[in-house]
Amino acid sequence: MILGENERTADANRSAFAAAGVAVVNVMSSPGAGKTTLLCEVFARLAPELRVGVIEGDIETAIDADRLAATGVPVALINTANGFGGECHLDATMVRSALERLALDDLDLVVIENVGNLVCPAEFDVGETARLIVYSVTEGEEKPYKYPVMFRSADVVAINKVDLLPHLDFDIDAFESNLRGVNPAAAQLRTSARTGDGIEAICGWFRSVVEAHVQVPTPHDGDE
Amino acid sequence: MILGENERTADANRSAFAAAGVAVVNVMSSPGAGKTTLLCEVFARLAPELRVGVIEGDIETAIDADRLAATGVPVALINTANGFGGECHLDATMVRSALERLALDDLDLVVIENVGNLVCPAEFDVGETARLIVYSVTEGEEKPYKYPVMFRSADVVAINKVDLLPHLDFDIDAFESNLRGVNPAAAQLRTSARTGDGIEAICGWFRSVVEAHVQVPTPHDGDE
Repeated sequence: MILGENERTADANRSAFAAAGVAVVNVMSSPGAGKTTLLCEVFARLAPELRVGVIEGDIETAIDADRLAATGVPVALINTANGFGGECHLDATMVRSALERLALDDLDLVVIENVGNLVCPAEFDVGETARLIVYSVTEGEEKPYKYPVMFRSADVVAINKVDLLPHLDFDIDAFESNLRGVNPAAAQLRTSARTGDGIEAICGWFRSVVEAHVQVPTPHDGDE
Repeated sequence: MILGENERTADANRSAFAAAGVAVVNVMSSPGAGKTTLLCEVFARLAPELRVGVIEGDIETAIDADRLAATGVPVALINTANGFGGECHLDATMVRSALERLALDDLDLVVIENVGNLVCPAEFDVGETARLIVYSVTEGEEKPYKYPVMFRSADVVAINKVDLLPHLDFDIDAFESNLRGVNPAAAQLRTSARTGDGIEAICGWFRSVVEAHVQVPTPHDGDE
């Protein structure tokens, strides 16, 4: 896909999201960093207060879509192997194709779980409000420098699976410093879906994205 | 790059490798699965018997190239951010560009460490003899079904970081069964660079690739 074409479709998606008053978070990571498990925990906590919908991107299978749907949220699955050439990322057109399967007007937040890939998804604006990168502590300290496009694009990075830290040689302070070197503006949260560490913090971040996005009605002078 | 063009260049690479009598292994994985650490251990053991060279693919940085060069092997680094559009994989043309920096005639084995990505590298033949996928046990049991193109293309899969198994919910038997479901022909080895588990087995696999590839001189009748 030509990137200019993608930008136009991303802008159309952005308009559709704005018209529905819905905030959209694009969630990206390497394969197996724990996106789906983390999102299941987050949705369980956000469900009573926010109406959440999901766009799930995978090359093949409905494994992750089924797990997320089990939390009670509506899920629109995009398998890139079906009609999208087995693409390694979601683009704006694919996301657009999923919108008709989500009742946007009934939602506060749409979470897009992108294809597991620390490279290509970063290059495609899909019309999102914010970007969350999930990074597993098993992946090493140096990756912000090796995958800078992805890490530069993040609004927040969930440093995940911190329950494994006692069993790894991973220096989390060094990773956080490397990440600041590449993207000083990104918020950093330490998380573990297994122990619950940081889950409330990441829920707080999701809430803040929705609140910042809410259309505040313009005050007017009434009819005096 | 057009795939037909890639195939032609891959064939040219294959001819160059055959002419030099060198076997070539393309090593692929997700980011952080442990390719570089595993290869450092393998090279330390193979060095006394085999002449090994490396083509290192990364989007940016010489971090992995420097680690591998420290084992004493010659390394030709390809940074895809320099002149290759920051590509998320190596293709045959990139590998070709590295060949002039390796003295192929002085080598028995070239190891190509591909960009960390479980999707795109699988689609590009670079002229290799065999493919090794390194998979970390932290990545979950279901990935062979979610990333079938990669797993189908493997000759051998190193199921890595098995030292972490006591701290994970990962069901290694289920993973191996899923992998057999997608690719029944692939050899499966359990490895850990940290404990040394399976390193001798993977060295044995590298040796077998080199031995199978050695050009046996065609017997001839002499000049009687």
